Amino acid sequence: MDQRDKDAIKEIVGEDHFTDELIDLVSYSYDSSDHDHRPDCAVYPADAEEIGKILQLANQRGFAVVPRGAGTSLAGSTVPAKGGVVLDMVRMNRILDIRIPDRQVVVQPGVVYAELQKALAPSGFCFPPDPASGKVCTLGGNVATNAGGIRGAKYGVTRDYVLALEVVLPDGRIVHTGTKCMKSASGLDLTRLFVGSEGVLGVITEITLKINPMPTASRTALASFETLRQAGQAVTDIMHSGILPSVLEIMEENTIRVLRENYGAELPDVKALLLVETDGYTDAEAAYAMGKVVSAFEANQAKTVSQAKDKASAEKLWAIRRSAGSVAGGLRPNNLSEDVTVPISKVPDLLEGIQKIMEGQPYPFVIFGHAGDGNLHPKIMFDGADPVQVKDVHHIAEQVFRLTCNLGGTLTGEHGIGLAKAPYMTMEHEPLAMELMRLLKRTLDPNNVLNPGKMALDD
Amino acid sequence: MDQRDKDAIKEIVGEDHFTDELIDLVSYSYDSSDHDHRPDCAVYPADAEEIGKILQLANQRGFAVVPRGAGTSLAGSTVPAKGGVVLDMVRMNRILDIRIPDRQVVVQPGVVYAELQKALAPSGFCFPPDPASGKVCTLGGNVATNAGGIRGAKYGVTRDYVLALEVVLPDGRIVHTGTKCMKSASGLDLTRLFVGSEGVLGVITEITLKINPMPTASRTALASFETLRQAGQAVTDIMHSGILPSVLEIMEENTIRVLRENYGAELPDVKALLLVETDGYTDAEAAYAMGKVVSAFEANQAKTVSQAKDKASAEKLWAIRRSAGSVAGGLRPNNLSEDVTVPISKVPDLLEGIQKIMEGQPYPFVIFGHAGDGNLHPKIMFDGADPVQVKDVHHIAEQVFRLTCNLGGTLTGEHGIGLAKAPYMTMEHEPLAMELMRLLKRTLDPNNVLNPGKMALDD
Repeated sequence: MDQRDKDAIKEIVGEDHFTDELIDLVSYSYDSSDHDHRPDCAVYPADAEEIGKILQLANQRGFAVVPRGAGTSLAGSTVPAKGGVVLDMVRMNRILDIRIPDRQVVVQPGVVYAELQKALAPSGFCFPPDPASGKVCTLGGNVATNAGGIRGAKYGVTRDYVLALEVVLPDGRIVHTGTKCMKSASGLDLTRLFVGSEGVLGVITEITLKINPMPTASRTALASFETLRQAGQAVTDIMHSGILPSVLEIMEENTIRVLRENYGAELPDVKALLLVETDGYTDAEAAYAMGKVVSAFEANQAKTVSQAKDKASAEKLWAIRRSAGSVAGGLRPNNLSEDVTVPISKVPDLLEGIQKIMEGQPYPFVIFGHAGDGNLHPKIMFDGADPVQVKDVHHIAEQVFRLTCNLGGTLTGEHGIGLAKAPYMTMEHEPLAMELMRLLKRTLDPNNVLNPGKMALDD
Repeated sequence: MDQRDKDAIKEIVGEDHFTDELIDLVSYSYDSSDHDHRPDCAVYPADAEEIGKILQLANQRGFAVVPRGAGTSLAGSTVPAKGGVVLDMVRMNRILDIRIPDRQVVVQPGVVYAELQKALAPSGFCFPPDPASGKVCTLGGNVATNAGGIRGAKYGVTRDYVLALEVVLPDGRIVHTGTKCMKSASGLDLTRLFVGSEGVLGVITEITLKINPMPTASRTALASFETLRQAGQAVTDIMHSGILPSVLEIMEENTIRVLRENYGAELPDVKALLLVETDGYTDAEAAYAMGKVVSAFEANQAKTVSQAKDKASAEKLWAIRRSAGSVAGGLRPNNLSEDVTVPISKVPDLLEGIQKIMEGQPYPFVIFGHAGDGNLHPKIMFDGADPVQVKDVHHIAEQVFRLTCNLGGTLTGEHGIGLAKAPYMTMEHEPLAMELMRLLKRTLDPNNVLNPGKMALDD
């Protein structure tokens, strides 16, 4: 980009909503992954029209445009790999409409996830997906990465709740997709083309979401197991038991040890923990489901089973689980946090396989995740200042991806591909599927102006 | 198509799996809509490879290829509008795998919906979408039309349960999309590109579906209202009450009268009925939710409220509802059955608007449908042998579509567009959305061989 391009962009968004100061550009060169690349400038667009004009210019002048929410991507999805303009959606942060009788909300992409939940709570409603970064991440980012969370087993992912979108296409035109009805079978599904597309096909500027009444009762229990296989069989038995737990989390021995030693959690010295929540609108429903869960624990020789007596003791258990990532992350300056996912019954194989890959490696690691939908988070701690360690860890990640794909899994359950997993796309997707994805990208964005370099689409 | 084409196709599928006999071609010229067009021949392919070869030939020779399940489309989706070959998927009817611990089944497209449910029932699992044609329709058709049903309000539609697909592309190549995991954020969503595409982008040859444990408790209640507004407000109040009914059906006065006079149902002489089911794994849960529903009935001056005492009395109420369509349909030789859908709060407006459109018209009509997701089924009875009546009814349909779109609705909640609603696509979808749909069709099927003439994509 040259000065003329920057001036033209200033013209579009206004001087106050443009920056090319070094301190800002450095900030926008990162997200929450270990990738970085500096953009030429960043803007704070007010609306879809301004974004459209920037994209028109981008096509004429050949610079890249990268939409960005809160920058919580763990995959480098918002890192401007080819420079250009970062669109920080922070000003497009209004909740436009809450229509409880229609079970809908309309939001701009820059609305922070937690702000929507806060706005819905007084009506007893919620947006069910629950990314761990909910306090800061934006709904635009949630839609663009098809975000999940710990309640996915029962409540699905962001994709299941998107009814309609306003999207600025790569050529700058603004399209409205989907329906404001609960369901529609009208025409090709343009909406889902953009959900999970990580900003490579369009810039999402308005989102209509389906919302749910909030469950009002829940039960929580924690069980410990002396072998991974027992924990795995307990998960299988729970899935067979005729109920759907709202949360079904697994933590392996390293996670347990780190939580005991570095967080002071009172946890037994075992190979695996399962932490389960059941829910409903009545305590009877949550208790019935928890009865099935506890039976599965007992049938698989759980060493200990503890049911939370009340909300406070349940919260204590969840706080332990929530700390796992950050406590482990503190062991070394850097960490690689993955979200490989396999069919539910393969979770023990994946856990054991990762443990085997890590045998003899000097890097501390933990594995925890959502056993209820097969989504595990292996986290490997290292020092990013040491190029040998960086190389080692990337080699380990590649082995984990290969193992996952061999188990019939996917590279990412909820983080997205971005830059981090782009080199491994062909491990998971067959050549023709890759060709189709690239064809879609090329057809919608022939000049490759939108978020180039991601998802291995421009290889 | 000439004899050479037919011979080449016979070569691919085998003589026994090919027909161009008149009696067969007449059958394949219809589905459950009032559209018809004769194909040149029909085949019963054994697998994706045979379909691929037929499509290769179609591209070389320029004939159309139209996939067909059970022919239950109410929109002409499977009518071969441009002749060519019908692919009757009846031989691809195997349930390939049931993996309860992974919450998955893998099926071929010709599996009848009810057969899957029968196979899952012993494990206590089900495929939640529930099209009314479930006894005969096929899962391939369900996926191709994104089929819904009366439980959509709580359990969503087919799209929400499709994890992975095998699809033969228009050029004959076979692609595998999606994941066999519960969730994935890996790459562009190719799977949803084909869900609801009505066979215009590819032929679905294998489907991986997510399944759910079956609810084991339910409550049913029927309420009558002296005004549509009261019934509408009761629906709004139910949506506000913090629970999700599993079924929330509405029937207006004509439906009630027809059921009383022609079916002998003991129903009050009122303007509207609401028939509601709540469910759960415990009776306490279903009863709690039903308590909320009954409160909403009472707060809106329901004339009568009757709760089913047991399974048999509930079944009696559901049998009445299920008969509505066929009993009304019997009043005249033909009927037009629509599935316009609006935001839930607009259901009373849609009902009143349709009644107004029908004022002074000589055609008997009924309206019933899924108030819980805003999906109404107006059904207009006429004599298809009289061209004046046919013209009249099509004019009425157009007015209903216009009304629906003006209320922020969609032409079709669950039947699809096909031929029947193709002329109205631009009422609902803006020009740029239409352009995008056509671009996708043209990009994947440049020779327009797959199910041409549908969805207004080749206009």
